[in-house]
Amino acid sequence: MTYCVGLWLEQGLVMLADTRTNAGVDNISTFSKVYTATVPGERVLCLLSAGNLAITQAVWNRLGEGLTLEGEHHTLLTVPSMFRAAQLVGAAIRQVYQIDGPTLKDQGVGFDVSIMLGGQIAGGPVRLYLVYAAGNFIEATPDTPFLQIGEHKYGKPILDRALTHQTSLEGGVKLTLVSMDSTLRSNLTVGLPLDLVVYDTDSFQIRLQQRITEEDPYFRSLREAWSVALRDAYRQMPEPAWLQPAIPPVQGTSTAELGSGLNLGPIDILPD
Amino acid sequence: MTYCVGLWLEQGLVMLADTRTNAGVDNISTFSKVYTATVPGERVLCLLSAGNLAITQAVWNRLGEGLTLEGEHHTLLTVPSMFRAAQLVGAAIRQVYQIDGPTLKDQGVGFDVSIMLGGQIAGGPVRLYLVYAAGNFIEATPDTPFLQIGEHKYGKPILDRALTHQTSLEGGVKLTLVSMDSTLRSNLTVGLPLDLVVYDTDSFQIRLQQRITEEDPYFRSLREAWSVALRDAYRQMPEPAWLQPAIPPVQGTSTAELGSGLNLGPIDILPD
Repeated sequence: MTYCVGLWLEQGLVMLADTRTNAGVDNISTFSKVYTATVPGERVLCLLSAGNLAITQAVWNRLGEGLTLEGEHHTLLTVPSMFRAAQLVGAAIRQVYQIDGPTLKDQGVGFDVSIMLGGQIAGGPVRLYLVYAAGNFIEATPDTPFLQIGEHKYGKPILDRALTHQTSLEGGVKLTLVSMDSTLRSNLTVGLPLDLVVYDTDSFQIRLQQRITEEDPYFRSLREAWSVALRDAYRQMPEPAWLQPAIPPVQGTSTAELGSGLNLGPIDILPD
Repeated sequence: MTYCVGLWLEQGLVMLADTRTNAGVDNISTFSKVYTATVPGERVLCLLSAGNLAITQAVWNRLGEGLTLEGEHHTLLTVPSMFRAAQLVGAAIRQVYQIDGPTLKDQGVGFDVSIMLGGQIAGGPVRLYLVYAAGNFIEATPDTPFLQIGEHKYGKPILDRALTHQTSLEGGVKLTLVSMDSTLRSNLTVGLPLDLVVYDTDSFQIRLQQRITEEDPYFRSLREAWSVALRDAYRQMPEPAWLQPAIPPVQGTSTAELGSGLNLGPIDILPD
């Protein structure tokens, strides 16, 4: 699996991907899942991928060669808008599906790919899309300003609770790293190093494209601080009001049958 | 789906289940997933279930009637040890599988059931098991003092980070509720109310068996306090050391081609 997350914020984009690929737990490798297309001063596009590695690499190559969209040949460096860019990614996925799909299906392998696309092209706003294996796509909105692909469940609760479209880019970087850390700790198929991209709205150049390794001092300090903060936070939660004092241990073994029984649920009682 | 979690602690057991069942997102219901078998002073057993509701109800009924295990007829009120109790649950699952399994398979429905079993029988220690659909089972140990069934991913990171076998029962109650809250917020197939069981080691009676509704003042305050604590915690995380100041917006639209290109990953550069 994979975990990629993208934040669509007022100030710009934060996009983070792990680098682990695996064909079974005994065959893991490191591949970057981040792809960027930039024309400084004019466009920045960043793509993150999840799914079958052969499929995503085929999609990258087709995007590099360019595709014909409604009669015009385009690459990500020439499409006129982010919407067209998402269509181009979808078209690349469909092309790979036409070629590889039938044999994969014959051999019982799912056509598993999803691509997140974020960026800005001069004349338009920053947009963030999630393109599915069928080539169709959805877009992040202020109600849900983040998208995830791959192993998304572990890292979702913190984003559901803390992220808004108004979160700063610095806050977004912290939240994506915390979200990734939760996933790394609980799932072996997501692994370090990480690739992070940060983009400022209307800057038309990438502010940061960073590989974060296990030795990165900042990421280490964040992981440690987050663990400490969580443990402190749960200890400071109010005590359960309805929890009575402990029942003392029984002396010896009683076999009192009074009140014995099988109970389904807190209310219904099934007699033995 | 379902989310159930059980903690195996020095001081005893904490077991928590949601109550939502669903046959598609447009057909949800409330069913207790908690089943207890008690002989005060002699034994307390608590079971939590996940999976196909018809299967788990069939298992409950067979456990109520009793099964023959190595030549002896037993219910959960008579088995001589927790290990035998786990075997009894496994045997009940296999009996249901023999009867319902073939038709379910014919109709393309998986035989989906898992049951958590915690408790203590006089003469033995507190034990916590997870019984699979094949009737085989695993047991919690000090290395991993919790077990989960159903929709487990959202609520796992907090347990991975904060729970140990030495955590108090009060702490355990808070952690399971936080773990459940993370799941409730992020996944529609897990729903309130909750059923909570707390057992003290060597007490041979249930300290608490509680239904927690949306209106429960303690659970409401915990959810709110946890959200606030998480938001505070992420704000207090150190700032990303390698994140440079923001890039100012471009004035007008430049079409400078210098440095344009497609990049795969943070290192490799594919020329356009």
